[in-house]
Amino acid sequence: MVMTMPKVVVIGGGPSGICAAFYAKQQNPDADVVVIRREPGFIVPCAIPYAFGLLSPEKIISKSPDNLVTSVGVKLVIDEVVEIDASSKVVKTAKGEKFPYDKLILATGSVPVMPPIPGSDLENVFPTPKSLDALSNVVKAVEKAKNVVIIGGGFAGVEIAAEVSRRGKKVSIVEMLPHCLQLAFDEEFCEKGEEHLKNHGINVYTGVKAERFVGDGAVKEVELSNGEKIPADVVIVAVGVRPNTKLATDMGLELGPFKAIKVDEHMRTSNPDVFAAGDCCEKISFITKKPSNLRLASIGAREGKVAGINAAGGDVTFPGVIGVFSTEFLGFGMGAAGFTEKAAKEEGIDVVVGNAVGFDKHPSTMPGTMQMHVKLIFRREDMKLIGGQVCGGLTAGEIANMLGFMIYKGATAEDLANMQYGTQPMLTPPPISYLVCRAAENALSEA
Amino acid sequence: MVMTMPKVVVIGGGPSGICAAFYAKQQNPDADVVVIRREPGFIVPCAIPYAFGLLSPEKIISKSPDNLVTSVGVKLVIDEVVEIDASSKVVKTAKGEKFPYDKLILATGSVPVMPPIPGSDLENVFPTPKSLDALSNVVKAVEKAKNVVIIGGGFAGVEIAAEVSRRGKKVSIVEMLPHCLQLAFDEEFCEKGEEHLKNHGINVYTGVKAERFVGDGAVKEVELSNGEKIPADVVIVAVGVRPNTKLATDMGLELGPFKAIKVDEHMRTSNPDVFAAGDCCEKISFITKKPSNLRLASIGAREGKVAGINAAGGDVTFPGVIGVFSTEFLGFGMGAAGFTEKAAKEEGIDVVVGNAVGFDKHPSTMPGTMQMHVKLIFRREDMKLIGGQVCGGLTAGEIANMLGFMIYKGATAEDLANMQYGTQPMLTPPPISYLVCRAAENALSEA
Repeated sequence: MVMTMPKVVVIGGGPSGICAAFYAKQQNPDADVVVIRREPGFIVPCAIPYAFGLLSPEKIISKSPDNLVTSVGVKLVIDEVVEIDASSKVVKTAKGEKFPYDKLILATGSVPVMPPIPGSDLENVFPTPKSLDALSNVVKAVEKAKNVVIIGGGFAGVEIAAEVSRRGKKVSIVEMLPHCLQLAFDEEFCEKGEEHLKNHGINVYTGVKAERFVGDGAVKEVELSNGEKIPADVVIVAVGVRPNTKLATDMGLELGPFKAIKVDEHMRTSNPDVFAAGDCCEKISFITKKPSNLRLASIGAREGKVAGINAAGGDVTFPGVIGVFSTEFLGFGMGAAGFTEKAAKEEGIDVVVGNAVGFDKHPSTMPGTMQMHVKLIFRREDMKLIGGQVCGGLTAGEIANMLGFMIYKGATAEDLANMQYGTQPMLTPPPISYLVCRAAENALSEA
Repeated sequence: MVMTMPKVVVIGGGPSGICAAFYAKQQNPDADVVVIRREPGFIVPCAIPYAFGLLSPEKIISKSPDNLVTSVGVKLVIDEVVEIDASSKVVKTAKGEKFPYDKLILATGSVPVMPPIPGSDLENVFPTPKSLDALSNVVKAVEKAKNVVIIGGGFAGVEIAAEVSRRGKKVSIVEMLPHCLQLAFDEEFCEKGEEHLKNHGINVYTGVKAERFVGDGAVKEVELSNGEKIPADVVIVAVGVRPNTKLATDMGLELGPFKAIKVDEHMRTSNPDVFAAGDCCEKISFITKKPSNLRLASIGAREGKVAGINAAGGDVTFPGVIGVFSTEFLGFGMGAAGFTEKAAKEEGIDVVVGNAVGFDKHPSTMPGTMQMHVKLIFRREDMKLIGGQVCGGLTAGEIANMLGFMIYKGATAEDLANMQYGTQPMLTPPPISYLVCRAAENALSEA
């Protein structure tokens, strides 16, 4: 009898693909694990906005993910998959290579959405770049520009706008919803974020659409749905992404309601030998168990872990997406976990809300102190935490992670009000006003 | 029948006293709540080190705590309590005022320990100052000094050393234990902290005692137990504090094994009408239920809440001290919660340890990126988290708070390994290497 090593092929080498490969190998060190990625280097996806300001494009390439997987014996192939033969279980690449698989993991990510705005074909109108070449191109165009307009005020749009403004450009954001960042935060948080942008000289146009891009060869201005015209030497469209499902549909995999690859809680697709993880696949909410449209690198990493372990013979499940976000622009940090108040109400959940406002350091004379606001959303029936938001300084991301864990563990308002914490002038709010506790106390007094 | 409002008198207006008064008034808005404090302004106790560098002494006075209590109707009296008549239930002050009470809360804090080192009476040898006048004096002396020696390498000593070094002084720390910060961190973390201090030009002498202070009128040098002599124009002794229990013992209250006021889980002393909170009172460990010697403003704030609610007629208990610490010196953040590995082993607990080292931002080219190390300590029998340490950047404090909550909720290594988190280049480690999860995975692989 000949022993054969199980072959696991991962298509895509972003956060979800890398995690899938790493954990597959960890689950079964004998497995033959291959990652096939189009891009030569690992682009840190969330760092793309910083390539417009604090960093240069080549500085957002990270070697550590590739080292992580190759150090445990994963084979990393730079090539593009053009076809998957599901019956003979073989992956074919642009360079003509063939990779047979026992189990396949699709981690093909997402592609930027380009809305059909007239003038989109003008020079210097760009989608959010996702490859290093594309990114370098856009950054070069921005360097020559005086006026830059960002279409879309989500995380990517706001962060790109902030970073471009660091280079002394006149920057405008155009968001068709009433507020920037509205999918992740309640209105009062969005307003604080917008205020910070405006205080730093960024024009924020909300509740208005980009009607057309106007120019002669190259773009010159953006015409808004209210008739206003904004000068624009460069336009970057950052209105979101859609799942990259071409290979999946070509091989006949089912899609879910959000047009992403349908998976079960094992991250298994409609083909039992094929798994999917990350932006390309469908998600369900941890709280409501309904389909969710969240796409985050951190979620992809977690899903990749589950897909990788299961593809290599393990048996673990993904409990659904809590949705922990964070963003930073020009020193302002914002984080959120779980439901916003608005989203909870839309789901018909009866909620009790608690708020606390204070400072992220203490006393407030400490250099760099920022006003901080914590908002917590509890389900009235059991006073369990189902959502939280925080804005202020650069600890907002880790506070959001703490809130995410609290949601995951079913923590109640009592738990949060009585939690023990440490305080330090440079690192936290003051002992008598630790804001997570104070917001929980506020909710208890409203319940 | 005459309705009388219950009278609650709080002695001490630091974090525990302020919290006691605030929550007493919140529990019973009809209560007549008085806080008696010696110092005119609220000194942020943990900010005292920063008065030597980033801030000036008057900048560590905070008005918010006083505003917090006076805005809800608490009376704040600046005076010194000289006697408590427990039989007639009256508090007498230095200014000759008398305050009758139904319930009394002692929040008298701690006083700096001055070890009997010969030469301690020389000019420019100071205990850690705890009042504004004392602090201003020491800061003035430091301003004129060239060489400053800090006796004691705990949080206060290390932070004061760091801040004094910001003023261009030559600074030395003398710690008799093998390492600085050893009561809160395991050895490898202490070493990283010491390395950061040394890299910033601070001399760190460990495993050696200050034998005597030498000088003629004013101190000139510190002689160590190994014979070495360090030049010293100013010496600050920061070897710890002891509970301030004079009023308590005068009125006949029992003390506990650490010479602090004995309290039950309601924060009630041996006199049923008297509560205590903060540095002056005895604590028990959340995990072992044994007496604990921890003294932190954040613990005092929590105890003050319990004492205040109970003194005003409520019925809540304090579950024991988890011990969440954090510190920052010259940009290096450190945090800890629960047991160190060493302390757990000394308690005879069989532990499984997990470690992860990476960066606090991503990619590591982000400005200000620090190497970060997370260490987690699980109890082998149930793989529940009983301790954690983190060092690196300025998110260490909130990560320690998250670890504290995880301990409080009985979270297991599986919970941590599978937690969902958000990642953002400026705010967190990368999605494929969120260090709390990776450390938990490391522990699971060792279990």
